[in-house]
Amino acid sequence: MDAAMHPDTGAAPATVDALGEHAIIARICERMGPAPDWLLVDVGDDAAVYEPARNLAEVVTTDAIVDGVHVNRALVSAQEIGHRALAVNLSDLAAMGAAPRLATLSLALPADLPVTDLDDLVSGVLALAERTRTRLVGGNVTRIAGPLVVDVVAIGSVHRRRVLTRRGARPGDYIFVSGTLGDARAGLARLIQAPTIRPDQASYPVARYLRPEPRLRLGQLLGRRRAATAALDLSDGLADGLSRLAECSGVGLEVEADALPIHPETAAAAAEAGRDAVREALVGGDDYELLFTVSPKRLRAVTGVARLVGELNLTRIGRVTRTPGTWLMHADGRREPVPPGYEHFTL
Amino acid sequence: MDAAMHPDTGAAPATVDALGEHAIIARICERMGPAPDWLLVDVGDDAAVYEPARNLAEVVTTDAIVDGVHVNRALVSAQEIGHRALAVNLSDLAAMGAAPRLATLSLALPADLPVTDLDDLVSGVLALAERTRTRLVGGNVTRIAGPLVVDVVAIGSVHRRRVLTRRGARPGDYIFVSGTLGDARAGLARLIQAPTIRPDQASYPVARYLRPEPRLRLGQLLGRRRAATAALDLSDGLADGLSRLAECSGVGLEVEADALPIHPETAAAAAEAGRDAVREALVGGDDYELLFTVSPKRLRAVTGVARLVGELNLTRIGRVTRTPGTWLMHADGRREPVPPGYEHFTL
Repeated sequence: MDAAMHPDTGAAPATVDALGEHAIIARICERMGPAPDWLLVDVGDDAAVYEPARNLAEVVTTDAIVDGVHVNRALVSAQEIGHRALAVNLSDLAAMGAAPRLATLSLALPADLPVTDLDDLVSGVLALAERTRTRLVGGNVTRIAGPLVVDVVAIGSVHRRRVLTRRGARPGDYIFVSGTLGDARAGLARLIQAPTIRPDQASYPVARYLRPEPRLRLGQLLGRRRAATAALDLSDGLADGLSRLAECSGVGLEVEADALPIHPETAAAAAEAGRDAVREALVGGDDYELLFTVSPKRLRAVTGVARLVGELNLTRIGRVTRTPGTWLMHADGRREPVPPGYEHFTL
Repeated sequence: MDAAMHPDTGAAPATVDALGEHAIIARICERMGPAPDWLLVDVGDDAAVYEPARNLAEVVTTDAIVDGVHVNRALVSAQEIGHRALAVNLSDLAAMGAAPRLATLSLALPADLPVTDLDDLVSGVLALAERTRTRLVGGNVTRIAGPLVVDVVAIGSVHRRRVLTRRGARPGDYIFVSGTLGDARAGLARLIQAPTIRPDQASYPVARYLRPEPRLRLGQLLGRRRAATAALDLSDGLADGLSRLAECSGVGLEVEADALPIHPETAAAAAEAGRDAVREALVGGDDYELLFTVSPKRLRAVTGVARLVGELNLTRIGRVTRTPGTWLMHADGRREPVPPGYEHFTL
């Protein structure tokens, strides 16, 4: 990628090892724009200082991207890694109903990382930050004799009575999911088969894998309008999400196989590879859609939210039950336990 | 270390790879104690939610510890790495005058890391967290095909008019530093020479290197009593701190060589190794003392603070000037530019 970006010189691209910590930080800070008025002390001091608005609760989350575990740099560009590192954290804020406010960025950089990759990575972070009004307020940069590590903490605000937790699902509630499921898994499979597919010419599943979109507006609307009783984001797939929701709320869940929203291209990809699209939708991670529950009395509030989130579909996929367990219900009346999700650490 | 802890079995210790992400997180959460009342949503949801007290500004900082860059696991125990990862962040809060409130912990673990080392690392974090009333509110765990990475974000609170920045030093102010300088560098040198020195039998410099103490009480008192015009912590040494202070405040600094506080054991270690103790005090990092400036009118406030911090000495080492530059003043009237500090990235 980098050699191709310097066709005029033919020289090897500059690597981050030649820059040093201060130059790298200065390079990032130069691109950050003016500070919002709630930021009392900006980057460049021992820490950043901000003043949250009244009656708001602050939401804190952290997630890391490690090359070779969460992404593979052969398949994913530096810009997409930057986007992902922030997106996965914003997705957690979305799942709490919070509006993002600020983020920190911690980078462990291999010495031979091209400076152009560093710049692209920062571009990926800052483009999403700007679009979501997330302010980068600090971070640190270190060298690593190992893979690239991008660690982000995001902090957001929400009215304390509008927080969406995983604990509020009650028997009788409907289960909803946003968007479509299994896309990212299908996209990653396609990228592994044909790594030269780039985003501009990518299929829907590939684009979904490469640029996950945090459902911030949906999360905030679900909270503000008291439409949802519980919510979480699907970072590790629907099966994993259902099992966490059931456990945290102390309920059972029944999901209808036929109701799962699957994109035609993702269904076609599964069929082509001889895989079951429903199973893929259950175990496929990295979609970052929201899974949420709704009291039957608040179904109209969800209809209102659905109108406001535009093209993003909200699909009713099942029901919360009193009996523990998470079940997949088939049209013919059969039911089977939802398969276990995956764990990053043992991936 | 680990083999010695299992003398009864002789079996190889369990490694983290066998545990998986959920088990590792559960292992950490089990040890965390009851949540404070300002923590609205604890670990286990998409994110933690807290509600800061009124009129308080929130302070956010992040710093990572990478094995092979900031520490060497051959010299520093897992518990000390955990302590350090939190301590360096709390030191940044101290330098802002903030009281710590919460922290996140992000771990990238090599697959062959013994579980006992993971537990020891967490012990190091939690012991310091408990002593400083810092609540761990989340984090994440991932595998890494590379060195151990421990990334911490700490958040603290301070009254917005009591924030200590690096920008407030004015010509005529006195320059102060807490504790003694160059100890950690001397301690690290001794550890490298003789890695079998352990903390319980360690000399003062070795103990200072292995267990840096964030100067939280000092920072908060300097802010609350309006004793300091500016403050920062000495993570990368006095020379580096002076240069950052001069740059951020737009002033010059004159430091008296004879005034630098140097511990007798550290002075002896320098003499023994044929090194200049004053130079060591200037360029040696990892002491985590506070460097701060004081208006002549507020010298009495500093005397009051000094009484309250007990055994921690506060030493007047120089003066803020209008002319730019950072200078080392000798008793015979000579002056020389303060040598540059070091940069982690190019260490």
